[in-house]
Amino acid sequence: MSFDDIAPPELLRERAFNLRWAQQPAGVIPLTAADSDFPVAPQIREAMARYVHDGVLGYGPPEGLAHFRDAVARWLTQRCGLSCTGGDVIATDSAAAAIAQVAGACLTAGDEVLIPDPVDFLFAHTISKAGATPVRVPLRPETTAAEYVAALQERVSTCTRMMWLCHPHNPLGLVKDPAWLRPVAEWAVARGLWILSDEVWSDIVYPPHRIVSVAALSQEIAARTVTVYGFSKGFGLAGLRIGAIVCTDAQRLEQIVSSADVRSTVAGASVLSQVGAAAAVTSAGSWLDGFLRHLRDQRDYALARLAAWPTVTAAVPQGTFVVFPNVSGLSQNTEELCAMLLRRAGVALVPGTPRWFGPGAAGHLRISFATSRQVLAEAFDRLDPVIAEIAEIAERSVRAHRGRSSV
Amino acid sequence: MSFDDIAPPELLRERAFNLRWAQQPAGVIPLTAADSDFPVAPQIREAMARYVHDGVLGYGPPEGLAHFRDAVARWLTQRCGLSCTGGDVIATDSAAAAIAQVAGACLTAGDEVLIPDPVDFLFAHTISKAGATPVRVPLRPETTAAEYVAALQERVSTCTRMMWLCHPHNPLGLVKDPAWLRPVAEWAVARGLWILSDEVWSDIVYPPHRIVSVAALSQEIAARTVTVYGFSKGFGLAGLRIGAIVCTDAQRLEQIVSSADVRSTVAGASVLSQVGAAAAVTSAGSWLDGFLRHLRDQRDYALARLAAWPTVTAAVPQGTFVVFPNVSGLSQNTEELCAMLLRRAGVALVPGTPRWFGPGAAGHLRISFATSRQVLAEAFDRLDPVIAEIAEIAERSVRAHRGRSSV
Repeated sequence: MSFDDIAPPELLRERAFNLRWAQQPAGVIPLTAADSDFPVAPQIREAMARYVHDGVLGYGPPEGLAHFRDAVARWLTQRCGLSCTGGDVIATDSAAAAIAQVAGACLTAGDEVLIPDPVDFLFAHTISKAGATPVRVPLRPETTAAEYVAALQERVSTCTRMMWLCHPHNPLGLVKDPAWLRPVAEWAVARGLWILSDEVWSDIVYPPHRIVSVAALSQEIAARTVTVYGFSKGFGLAGLRIGAIVCTDAQRLEQIVSSADVRSTVAGASVLSQVGAAAAVTSAGSWLDGFLRHLRDQRDYALARLAAWPTVTAAVPQGTFVVFPNVSGLSQNTEELCAMLLRRAGVALVPGTPRWFGPGAAGHLRISFATSRQVLAEAFDRLDPVIAEIAEIAERSVRAHRGRSSV
Repeated sequence: MSFDDIAPPELLRERAFNLRWAQQPAGVIPLTAADSDFPVAPQIREAMARYVHDGVLGYGPPEGLAHFRDAVARWLTQRCGLSCTGGDVIATDSAAAAIAQVAGACLTAGDEVLIPDPVDFLFAHTISKAGATPVRVPLRPETTAAEYVAALQERVSTCTRMMWLCHPHNPLGLVKDPAWLRPVAEWAVARGLWILSDEVWSDIVYPPHRIVSVAALSQEIAARTVTVYGFSKGFGLAGLRIGAIVCTDAQRLEQIVSSADVRSTVAGASVLSQVGAAAAVTSAGSWLDGFLRHLRDQRDYALARLAAWPTVTAAVPQGTFVVFPNVSGLSQNTEELCAMLLRRAGVALVPGTPRWFGPGAAGHLRISFATSRQVLAEAFDRLDPVIAEIAEIAERSVRAHRGRSSV
């Protein structure tokens, strides 16, 4: 399959929500939510079409279909070194729901959780919903493990129950190697904390980087780690609401199952979504390889175009399909900046506001590049002149300020 | 489509969970969970196959696809007189999840909720999970509205926040007409209570009975009622996890949406499940008519067979595809009775235990008849001799007891 063309525009305008085509004014290019513009792999479509054709769509098992659980265990073992079996996996109604289920099972009011800053809004949101308090730990592309451990150490308290990691990291695009992850995870284990490792992005990692699950680092770490996996990023199944929780500690997994209320049928994942997701990790590996090659080219193209923006810097994403440039030289208010870019260039981006990513995102924008080259090029063609104008105004204001200062 | 044949046995043994074929020993006939043995309507399969074929399965809108919401509103307006528009409807991840979302939004610790006894276990379970207390109100097939109101009145307290109805009623099979429902609902509204009307069974009603939504009774009642609807009973979509909440009070609906956490993507319903469900209520009406004719014949057949069981009585189900015979003349312990019937007859039934239906279910069994005539006949052929034997032992024990009493 070629990734020259995205799905037909009329289909995207009908179906792509969450700040994307269906929710923007006509003509606007959305490089917003981390959702791809490509149709899903044919292997996924075929498996679901077969299952639908057979027509039996009654209640599935509460923890998920055995073939889904086994398929996810095999995939994560092969791909991320996470040694697990189907019995360690439960199907969840999205990775977001998985994170909420872990929070619901592991946290109570007054607890504190150490999370990176910046990070996807779901972390702080979900912890707060569970009645606990997110405690933010600054993370930059250049932060060393020792520095991160020191920052954790400064913020840990007697109320701290968990440390949450986002790996690969959204929005920074970081893929940490075991040498970085191990001391961080060992610090948490030594303090009796549980680790939640959100690995929803684990399928989108660019060579030479490789993904190694946090729970693959040692048996001691695995025994204290709950891994969340999803199918929205690598396989484009966000609308099917399907994810997974992996935990090799049977007691903790049972606690999550029980707290999530799946046995009563109150919670659970669609059997058809499980069939599609199982097909993804069983049969769509070569489709994913092609998608990754396309994304790497897109990443490099986006970085090349960003390099032409005055004062703007961007770290190279090692994983994920988002880039997170620092635009503080253009504007201190990224919400205003995004509103202006939407209005004048017809391109929608996500501002680095506390609401979306925490205070550590200040001065940044997030740009998703999971689209065709043509759409991405058109977006930059539209953005460039507006950015140039903004840069000139910013430059003039800096010069005026310098002039005043020197008087 | 003919309802002579259920789905192929190997498919049911692979896919039908929740105490059914896939979870029983080989050879056992499960008349347990209220889930049908028939493949879903072709119109549903075709709509889902088309959607899958197009391949765009990204994030849907948090409250549900507009065409799903509109289709549900049209269906409930036409069929149940529930005057509503798509804006009053939200898609939920199953009717069970819908009930839990309403409870989460409307109840806090210490609150009390009036529920019928017996009723499906989800009522008490969900209220307890929300930290509130279910208060059971006895309901029998012969209970008049005045008697039910008097029983409600006896149990209402300053802590009572809601009255929940199950309409049609599971497991009693009752379909109440407006003359019964109105005084009950008006009593609740006059006391400032909110009503939850679980109408997940509203598509399975047998003539001459007709379903009228509680929220269709008057504007005052509608303004205080949240209706839950689902696609598992009429259309066999339990595995797709799709249901709906309908509330014409915009403020209350907003409170439910906000509390259910759908805007964050933590909760929501699969877009593909919404597509299947929308096709069901838009295009599968004549399929449903055929299913209903088959079910009515099955109901009459089950009642005829039950009439041959000594001491056993059963009310005629006016809706639902379950019958709820009183077997207290055979055994006081229906859990033991069901275990014996499973062991000796190879037929699985649901015992009328407090766990499943509340104390009001004592002495009863629940039998689902949403299968083929052949399977139902085979089940009764197997049950009859075991029941006859149990009846004889019970009769002998009664005679012995009488003998002793007269000494």
